[in-house]
Amino acid sequence: MTFKASIITLYPEMFPGSLGLSLAGNALEKDTWQLETTNLRDFGKGKHANVDDTPAGGGAGMVLRADVLAEAIDATVDKEDIRPRLLMSPRGKPLTQERVRELSQGGGVVIVCGRFEGVDERVIEERDLEEVSIGDYILSGGEPAAIILLDAIVRLLPGVMGNDESGETESFENGLLEHPPYTRPAEFEGKTIPEILTSGNHGKVDEWRKLQSLELTKSRRPDLLETQPGTPTHIMPALPVTDLLDGVAFYRDTLGFSCVFLDEGGTAVLQLGKVELHLWLSNDESWKSRDLNEKQIVSGAETFIAGTHSCRIEVNDVFALYEHYKKLRCLHPNAQAPEKKPWDATEFGILDPYGNLIIFFEWL
Amino acid sequence: MTFKASIITLYPEMFPGSLGLSLAGNALEKDTWQLETTNLRDFGKGKHANVDDTPAGGGAGMVLRADVLAEAIDATVDKEDIRPRLLMSPRGKPLTQERVRELSQGGGVVIVCGRFEGVDERVIEERDLEEVSIGDYILSGGEPAAIILLDAIVRLLPGVMGNDESGETESFENGLLEHPPYTRPAEFEGKTIPEILTSGNHGKVDEWRKLQSLELTKSRRPDLLETQPGTPTHIMPALPVTDLLDGVAFYRDTLGFSCVFLDEGGTAVLQLGKVELHLWLSNDESWKSRDLNEKQIVSGAETFIAGTHSCRIEVNDVFALYEHYKKLRCLHPNAQAPEKKPWDATEFGILDPYGNLIIFFEWL
Repeated sequence: MTFKASIITLYPEMFPGSLGLSLAGNALEKDTWQLETTNLRDFGKGKHANVDDTPAGGGAGMVLRADVLAEAIDATVDKEDIRPRLLMSPRGKPLTQERVRELSQGGGVVIVCGRFEGVDERVIEERDLEEVSIGDYILSGGEPAAIILLDAIVRLLPGVMGNDESGETESFENGLLEHPPYTRPAEFEGKTIPEILTSGNHGKVDEWRKLQSLELTKSRRPDLLETQPGTPTHIMPALPVTDLLDGVAFYRDTLGFSCVFLDEGGTAVLQLGKVELHLWLSNDESWKSRDLNEKQIVSGAETFIAGTHSCRIEVNDVFALYEHYKKLRCLHPNAQAPEKKPWDATEFGILDPYGNLIIFFEWL
Repeated sequence: MTFKASIITLYPEMFPGSLGLSLAGNALEKDTWQLETTNLRDFGKGKHANVDDTPAGGGAGMVLRADVLAEAIDATVDKEDIRPRLLMSPRGKPLTQERVRELSQGGGVVIVCGRFEGVDERVIEERDLEEVSIGDYILSGGEPAAIILLDAIVRLLPGVMGNDESGETESFENGLLEHPPYTRPAEFEGKTIPEILTSGNHGKVDEWRKLQSLELTKSRRPDLLETQPGTPTHIMPALPVTDLLDGVAFYRDTLGFSCVFLDEGGTAVLQLGKVELHLWLSNDESWKSRDLNEKQIVSGAETFIAGTHSCRIEVNDVFALYEHYKKLRCLHPNAQAPEKKPWDATEFGILDPYGNLIIFFEWL
């Protein structure tokens, strides 16, 4: 089956662009995939065939009209067409190799190229467009992004790559960045190829490559490691309280957390920004009766005993948060304005009604 | 000053591509920026002007030779040329709008377009190439990525955008996704423009847009919110231990954490994957003498008292981790194989030598 790409654009002359050469160009010639464009201008309104208008509510730039784009889409796809309808947009879901592979296994794609300040929201809803972003930067329009998406898809179509194996040993295909490659000459400006690669020991070579790949990912893209088996991705302190509903109320109403799970029998999960914490009902009587203002000696310094259960939360703008909590009167009895500690964190503390000490800090 | 882009590529005919039209094309014509290409093939070796060779250590695909690329770079830039030298590569640092803006304020860029399985690592080091990735997917080569990078840069060059303001109200420029735009017609397929936008009240419009922008970012790209003031980004349980060095040894040698900070007087920070925890020296004598196997009643059920300080760690592949810790004999005295709880987490527990209970879980 031929993979069919339909592009809706104000600049049909931007296609096929680089897709007309090299791998994608050869595949286009061999009819492994097909490309057609719909010119948005053909659906423009009035004497000047306008496709855009000023934003409702004012502001800079122009917005692509819902009616113009809807007519262009309707002229391009009929009701039986089940191809995904993608809108290239910086507001979209970030494109991944996994999604590229998925799209390459379908019958094709319809791609709408945005321009100007964006596309009227109503046509996105009414024509069920899936917003796709190729990265966190702004382009002059969706056309270069559409070329990127198609380039990534087309190379995965059957028969396009010379060596089928090649598609599977690359960056991201196993969730990691690729190991550094080397080739002849054996020596380049005094630098030789790592000995192990010329040893002829395939087991050792594979092991070395895997380790390099892991190390490179760890140092450059620790975010990608989340998908590796057995790696912790989140940690959540579990704090004891002697009254669960009151505890939830304090964390929600005073500290600003949302309660995302509540089992009145014993546990609750609270969330704020990207962090979560767990409250659990404790019947530890000795602890329940403890005086929150009692002091003890820790590391030679007098401190409140009420800090024996606690956690640390990193925030950005620790001073703003301090002022906010100060107004709410929930600071630790000996809390001072955030101050820089020897370990480079600038921090202050909150004491909850159950003696849990929470330190908010920022690396400043 | 004219911004000068020099591209080193095997496919000079892919340029200017979409950069020859629209915004970037007009700017190219007006000499706001210049584009030159160096053909890698001109520096190829032997009768067939080979630029690549098989990977050292074996495997699929071909690797771009260090010597060929070095000669092409040396022919393109002289020693006084201080422009950044970028290599488009999926292993690079992800491109951001911030980096784009920075590059647009310099005198130009030298861009090397990779092809095949990659570029011999030695030339990256010897010619000080900065690897840049436009996203987590694989392209047929660096050329379309170079076009993306230049498209994003060129639109920010002085005089290129019709309305200077437009560059600053877009997605990412304030760290958030842009609010949904609307334009005429007032009604489209029964859907009207949100009333507030046609109210004429600019203050309310701005407020609405800011809220929409925040909500959209929250639902689609919570990762971007990390940069908003006052938002918690990390949480770290702080667990009491009665011997700091022994505590660090347990978390490091048995559980596999790395110790990233140690103040022998009182605290240590341990890290595993993306999570961190804090140990602190406690002198709480009543707690120190507690029997780890003593039981208490929590929520009507008998449980080990030793769970009064604890935290929960999300991992991926909780079964593998359980088997690993089982061999190391550090499971909680009543730990069973990971089992699914009513709250949908599959979990098991570890007890540290100080009575801290740590639950490892996975959403399964």
